[in-house]
Amino acid sequence: MNCIIRPCTVKDCKVILQLIKVIAIDYKVPPAHLKVTLEALREDGFGAQPMYDCYVAELPSGQNSKKGDSIVGYVLSTYTYSTWKGRNVYIDNLYVRPEFRGQQIGKQLMKKTAEVALKKGCSQIRMHVARWKENENRFLTCCGSENLTAKEGWNLFRFEEDTLWRLAAHNKF
Amino acid sequence: MNCIIRPCTVKDCKVILQLIKVIAIDYKVPPAHLKVTLEALREDGFGAQPMYDCYVAELPSGQNSKKGDSIVGYVLSTYTYSTWKGRNVYIDNLYVRPEFRGQQIGKQLMKKTAEVALKKGCSQIRMHVARWKENENRFLTCCGSENLTAKEGWNLFRFEEDTLWRLAAHNKF
Repeated sequence: MNCIIRPCTVKDCKVILQLIKVIAIDYKVPPAHLKVTLEALREDGFGAQPMYDCYVAELPSGQNSKKGDSIVGYVLSTYTYSTWKGRNVYIDNLYVRPEFRGQQIGKQLMKKTAEVALKKGCSQIRMHVARWKENENRFLTCCGSENLTAKEGWNLFRFEEDTLWRLAAHNKF
Repeated sequence: MNCIIRPCTVKDCKVILQLIKVIAIDYKVPPAHLKVTLEALREDGFGAQPMYDCYVAELPSGQNSKKGDSIVGYVLSTYTYSTWKGRNVYIDNLYVRPEFRGQQIGKQLMKKTAEVALKKGCSQIRMHVARWKENENRFLTCCGSENLTAKEGWNLFRFEEDTLWRLAAHNKF
């Protein structure tokens, strides 16, 4: 399907937040663990210091989904820096509504992300996917990415906020 | 050891690049795959649009390593954005020269990263470590982080530059 892939605007944040919540349910994230709010999404994307880039896939004019939505997918990313490779793009979320899958919309969102990455002088795109998300794993592999955890043994480590407070309060060395 | 943990300056980039090369050898990265240069490190860290944050661990005045170096470690990070958790810090590199390990210098660098993360409104720090780097895995676990690949099955996917060009050139949908 020939969707319009365009930059997300502050007006789209409401729909993006709905989709973020759908993904969180899919990943069984308890609602209390979901910190993002409409205000944060607007401020962090479109305030004085934008923290992320976002592109949406919109149906051609006059077409809507069964529920009346025109935005059927999105990709949200940030820039990271690799000391081996320089500027990179890191995708936090790539999502297409289930009823619109299999129509190359995800691939159009990946094409846009690749175009922007190259334009910004980045040499890689990275993202995380849960091992059990078989369709997503297959999609990324079809798009040409490699699973570095399987191939090179890279593991993801996370420090949660309570650990950050504990580390920051540490005074004896 | 009570090192001085201070922001990296443009003058430190030469030492940082030496250390990056040491890490790359350790990870068996072929020299041709190492894209970073002194100019890129200076421009990307201290140019018009800084792409990374870096702190160095410096020996107290008058003390130097056997080889005459005063910088014995560093941590280099960027900001990412989680749609579930908001602003995050992503550490690309945390390194302490082998002869200075076991003296809590890594922990002092982690403390500084945690302080800056909290000050900037971030709620998590993330980083990748190869499964076979046992000391690094142990250090991160001691500091309070969790291995999300082991615990929740998160895998890291990478699109290389040639794949980005191929995706960007894709026209049929």
